[in-house]
Amino acid sequence: MNKFFKVAMNEALEGLNEGGIPIGSVLVHKDKIISQGHNRRIQKGSVILHAEMDALENASRQHEHVFHECTLYTTLSPCSMCSGAILLYKIPRVVIGENKNFKGEEELLISRGVDVKVLQNPECIEMMSKFIKNNKKLWDEDIGQISL
Amino acid sequence: MNKFFKVAMNEALEGLNEGGIPIGSVLVHKDKIISQGHNRRIQKGSVILHAEMDALENASRQHEHVFHECTLYTTLSPCSMCSGAILLYKIPRVVIGENKNFKGEEELLISRGVDVKVLQNPECIEMMSKFIKNNKKLWDEDIGQISL
Repeated sequence: MNKFFKVAMNEALEGLNEGGIPIGSVLVHKDKIISQGHNRRIQKGSVILHAEMDALENASRQHEHVFHECTLYTTLSPCSMCSGAILLYKIPRVVIGENKNFKGEEELLISRGVDVKVLQNPECIEMMSKFIKNNKKLWDEDIGQISL
Repeated sequence: MNKFFKVAMNEALEGLNEGGIPIGSVLVHKDKIISQGHNRRIQKGSVILHAEMDALENASRQHEHVFHECTLYTTLSPCSMCSGAILLYKIPRVVIGENKNFKGEEELLISRGVDVKVLQNPECIEMMSKFIKNNKKLWDEDIGQISL
């Protein structure tokens, strides 16, 4: 497993251990991690701290060119909010753990020139699939759906 | 001036008084304000707390249908991150103060069925125009641009 993706996976597992939604992200600049984060909906009662947003927020303000040279590793396909943040900061490369459980705005990202790679990592797919099955209402909330 | 838009303007002015970027937002559900916020880049060193995101975060977790029934008032055209958040939470209506100083992802919002209204409010245009003129580097940072 790619070493940066492994850190994203560990972030997801940390979220799970905290009783949260297991999605993790890592922001890498020139082969060095500048920040990492995980979904904090449960932990902070937050509606904006998806994993990718948490990693960005932990990166804090950067010299203007830094985000333009980063790769974002994230365990799940980024939703419209997180994809929008990727576009805002012109992050050029996104490595996604899987999109079997949720497919976000990959096509929008690609259409705007972002290099998108999907790993379809089996461990990642299983972790998320199990979580969604056991937490359907919470998951629907996280992706803005009404639970039926 | 619409009473909700006025609250968004006051949020923008509060941000300005704090030494921040003057953009404000208000989230209205069934004719009642459920949250409001303003850009906190300077105040909190935040890269994700644009005004719209701050208002959403201040709304906190809601019953799943609430965001689907809201109107978001915001003083400036929403960037890709904030537009992505609007799409994630299926906010159906957005009232924008102006898009002369910055035009965000209005077309994407409209293409996804969001009702977008732009007021082109002269007070709002002047406030933002003056701010950008005097704070070009900071403004470029807020919209992910490299200052020349």
